[in-house]
Amino acid sequence: MYRTNTCGELTLKNVGERVTLCGWLQRSRDLGGMTFIDLRDRYGITQLAFNMETNSELCEQARKLGREYVLQITGRVIERASKNTKIPTGEIEIEVEELNVLNEAKTPPFTIEDQSDGGDDLRMKYRYLDIRRAPVRRNLELRHRMAMLVRNYLSDRDFLEIETPMLIKSTPEGARDFVVPSRMNPGEFYALPQSPQQYKQLLMVAGMDRYFQIVRCFRDEDLRADRQPEFTQIDCEMSFVEQEDVLEMFEGLAKHLFKEVKGLEFGKFPRMSWHDAMRRYGSDKPDIRFGMEFVEINDIVKGKGFGLFDNAPLVVGICAKGCAEYTRKQIDALTDFVKRPQVGAGGLVWVKYNADGSLKSSVDKFYSQEDLQHIAEAMGADKGDLMLILCGEAMKTRVQLCALRLEMGNQLGLRNPDQYAPLWVVDFPLLEWDEETQRYYAMHHPFTAPKPEDEALLDDPSKWGDIRANAYDIVMNGVEVGGGSIRIHDRTLQNKMFHTLGFSDEQAYQQFGFLMDAFSYGAPPHAGLAFGFDRLCSLFGGADSIRDFIAFPKNNSGRDVMSGSPSPISDAQLEELQIATTVKQ
Amino acid sequence: MYRTNTCGELTLKNVGERVTLCGWLQRSRDLGGMTFIDLRDRYGITQLAFNMETNSELCEQARKLGREYVLQITGRVIERASKNTKIPTGEIEIEVEELNVLNEAKTPPFTIEDQSDGGDDLRMKYRYLDIRRAPVRRNLELRHRMAMLVRNYLSDRDFLEIETPMLIKSTPEGARDFVVPSRMNPGEFYALPQSPQQYKQLLMVAGMDRYFQIVRCFRDEDLRADRQPEFTQIDCEMSFVEQEDVLEMFEGLAKHLFKEVKGLEFGKFPRMSWHDAMRRYGSDKPDIRFGMEFVEINDIVKGKGFGLFDNAPLVVGICAKGCAEYTRKQIDALTDFVKRPQVGAGGLVWVKYNADGSLKSSVDKFYSQEDLQHIAEAMGADKGDLMLILCGEAMKTRVQLCALRLEMGNQLGLRNPDQYAPLWVVDFPLLEWDEETQRYYAMHHPFTAPKPEDEALLDDPSKWGDIRANAYDIVMNGVEVGGGSIRIHDRTLQNKMFHTLGFSDEQAYQQFGFLMDAFSYGAPPHAGLAFGFDRLCSLFGGADSIRDFIAFPKNNSGRDVMSGSPSPISDAQLEELQIATTVKQ
Repeated sequence: MYRTNTCGELTLKNVGERVTLCGWLQRSRDLGGMTFIDLRDRYGITQLAFNMETNSELCEQARKLGREYVLQITGRVIERASKNTKIPTGEIEIEVEELNVLNEAKTPPFTIEDQSDGGDDLRMKYRYLDIRRAPVRRNLELRHRMAMLVRNYLSDRDFLEIETPMLIKSTPEGARDFVVPSRMNPGEFYALPQSPQQYKQLLMVAGMDRYFQIVRCFRDEDLRADRQPEFTQIDCEMSFVEQEDVLEMFEGLAKHLFKEVKGLEFGKFPRMSWHDAMRRYGSDKPDIRFGMEFVEINDIVKGKGFGLFDNAPLVVGICAKGCAEYTRKQIDALTDFVKRPQVGAGGLVWVKYNADGSLKSSVDKFYSQEDLQHIAEAMGADKGDLMLILCGEAMKTRVQLCALRLEMGNQLGLRNPDQYAPLWVVDFPLLEWDEETQRYYAMHHPFTAPKPEDEALLDDPSKWGDIRANAYDIVMNGVEVGGGSIRIHDRTLQNKMFHTLGFSDEQAYQQFGFLMDAFSYGAPPHAGLAFGFDRLCSLFGGADSIRDFIAFPKNNSGRDVMSGSPSPISDAQLEELQIATTVKQ
Repeated sequence: MYRTNTCGELTLKNVGERVTLCGWLQRSRDLGGMTFIDLRDRYGITQLAFNMETNSELCEQARKLGREYVLQITGRVIERASKNTKIPTGEIEIEVEELNVLNEAKTPPFTIEDQSDGGDDLRMKYRYLDIRRAPVRRNLELRHRMAMLVRNYLSDRDFLEIETPMLIKSTPEGARDFVVPSRMNPGEFYALPQSPQQYKQLLMVAGMDRYFQIVRCFRDEDLRADRQPEFTQIDCEMSFVEQEDVLEMFEGLAKHLFKEVKGLEFGKFPRMSWHDAMRRYGSDKPDIRFGMEFVEINDIVKGKGFGLFDNAPLVVGICAKGCAEYTRKQIDALTDFVKRPQVGAGGLVWVKYNADGSLKSSVDKFYSQEDLQHIAEAMGADKGDLMLILCGEAMKTRVQLCALRLEMGNQLGLRNPDQYAPLWVVDFPLLEWDEETQRYYAMHHPFTAPKPEDEALLDDPSKWGDIRANAYDIVMNGVEVGGGSIRIHDRTLQNKMFHTLGFSDEQAYQQFGFLMDAFSYGAPPHAGLAFGFDRLCSLFGGADSIRDFIAFPKNNSGRDVMSGSPSPISDAQLEELQIATTVKQ
């Protein structure tokens, strides 16, 4: 062992001990008679003292060391003259007797400090330096800790972690697969799993009863801001359970994490149907850390001559508490916000409930003070509040108002990352209409069971949009951190579902035949849930981006700028695989 | 919840309770007045009793149920008339009051019993039924348990599990990569990792100090009997450690597993240099559960006129205790064994030490009784023993004799799967000469450090074969279960190593540039080790094949016969990826 102790553990109790430490040179201060070096490792920082008077040679040597040099030192623990109470080792320092440079270091391209001067691109290119920074290191430590907590929690409850294959069969349903050419089976390809969905269902058929896996998944999608082509799921499945059992089990897991990681205790998580979530928050993942719920005011505003409202299927607003003093400029900014193409509203109607009790609005022309008073009453507005109203086609308008609500939440500081508001969203629609391809798609996946009371609607295509699924999402602070469903375990119902999704018998069998076969040999009732582990970690870490909770993430073009991957491969490799690129040179 | 209890937990203490169980119909016996059903789940088997007299309707219904039907029953726990003491639930049965068929089942293609009538191919095709069998289920349970033990052990010792990328850069050194075409970067490819080697070294540069990961790895190799294209490693790396620290840490892990899983305690694991292992056992992974060590008898046998021995660089034998009574036929079989192409010896010389003290050999023409007596003395043979001797080029002969030694170990029952003999093999050669390409290859990988005392030999190409590495394998019962090395953390030495392996500066930089760059920013001394997790599980499970310790393995052509993967993909997929297959139709 190159060291007797780490840089994070020596305190006054160790004074007098002779120790050997290893680490990186964080910072060095030359005070004439003395030179101080902060030595850093994963566990902390310890101050090293070199005395020009007592050992000038060593001190001279120390003065030549650059940032991030790897050092091994031996010396005695002494009490510090000027103590630093901010760090655990701040009351001691090491009077260095021996110094060994284990490795030199070029000057790092950015500072290895909590607040670095490195931009995102530079930090990604030199990720191995970025990880030396305490905030990134702590994220990876948190991730490790959460994975351990999850595994022990589930294992204690008879869940078995079972590794499912990474080289699987490509299925065109769902997102785009990454594929892997097979050299031994020329012309054929494996796919990388988008999730172990089918395998975990097979494990239920296999009687494994309670399965989980913290598992890498892959989706070849055009990357949005915070998406990664490879990501990690806490994937779970249970047999002989009903929806209530699943919700209880994984609510228990979430509470366990909150308690262990954040010291927070929760009562029963609230539940909301998908329809309610859409109606009250315009989102299937509402942020319920704050209220500002939607109020539909069709009844109040229609028939007063304001054509926009009169013709709109939905007029809906929110009440921003204490915002009546918003200036023209602030309101214009909100109008611009909702008119951005990402939100897409036509405009914004506002009503101010002034401190003097008067009401002022952008549509005063059409509405009397009394009308505005009715609106204010409906929206629960008090003096000093600002009402913001959108109108148009119902679902679109709700989604637009959701964006505005979240923006107002941000502006009013109602979205505190240290506060957590978990929520179950249940009763999702089973099917989702796609305008482009003019067909229904499974909102979750083709194995999700309809609610038994809605099953009959499968026989009436005009009612397909109304069918509710036994599907559920777990939402925290406006982020979907997990979701799942009761699966179809009955082959007849599964066939019906495939037909609804436009699969012919042949297509269904070609894609899912082995699963359908499996189901004919005694499939138990089963259900499951998967958490997005990267997202869960970032949420617990109080950060918006998942990228800093992944050791080596890829950028938005799916590139690892550090290793330069992907990259061209040799002609010999292509030839062996019997493939060619068709890229025009 | 569909059940109140599992099928493995009810005993006499529960008599009188009303319970609901779910499971699969294992077996059904119709005794006229009574029908008994064995209901099976993951936790055990519980007997259900249906009484024709008290409830004929239910009993009739029960009689119609087929094997592997999924049932839910409710009834009262009663004491059994005829007890089965072999299973924990064998003293009770359930007097069934309600029966609910949750799912029907086609007759399975093989019996779901400990000893199945299904062949390997059938079992693989219906793997979800195979897993219902207790022996396979227990293997997966063991695997889960071992993974948990490993994780908790390492986590308790400050190791962090850090997930490294699966979509990485292809490097031609080592085995063949599986590659993944990048749609977003046309003409470019990711590779799947053969191991996280470079990333774990980067994590050491990043200061993460103690890393581990139970991680999927991929090798596109022609599959030998017990190889899988995807396999799992317990991958570990540590900083500021010497070889002794690594050996101690992972010996500790192995002992922990032995204790927890097998109830076995071990003293310090023996260590053997690679050269000793080759000389004494003809293998770098000797099975030391039994002796039968090699004895070199060049000095004794040469110059007696037997040309084969006279011309051989090495004459070496083993002594098989108590085998002097082997018949002509048995010895012929051994001769055939060593002459098989897989072993490749030219022939086998034997010497019998008969019970009456006389010596008889296949080369009596050349050797006197006294000569044979000398051989017997050298080989430590007693009356009743059989000596088996091979000759030829040294290394080849040793490897051949190793095969014979293991065969004799099998014949004599010396390789008990319930006995464990762990061993460290150390001081591996750094470089390995390849006849075909006429160059040296890294025996472990290009980052393995030479022993400091052998470093100077890198300057003399004629000595390259003599350089010893700071590399080590952990071997159990003749199986290499893990291996690792001290890494090169010095950039100059790493460059020298790349040159030794025939890389130009450009090639080295193109392949490993980002790692070399990283090393210039302060790389700590570091070392690591990886266990083959599939193999480790099979060893602890007392089985030879890893296949039954993998939930969904692939066959020797890399196919998953259950899902039919790999498979052709659509032209649309190929087009999007801008690749084409060049397979001749």
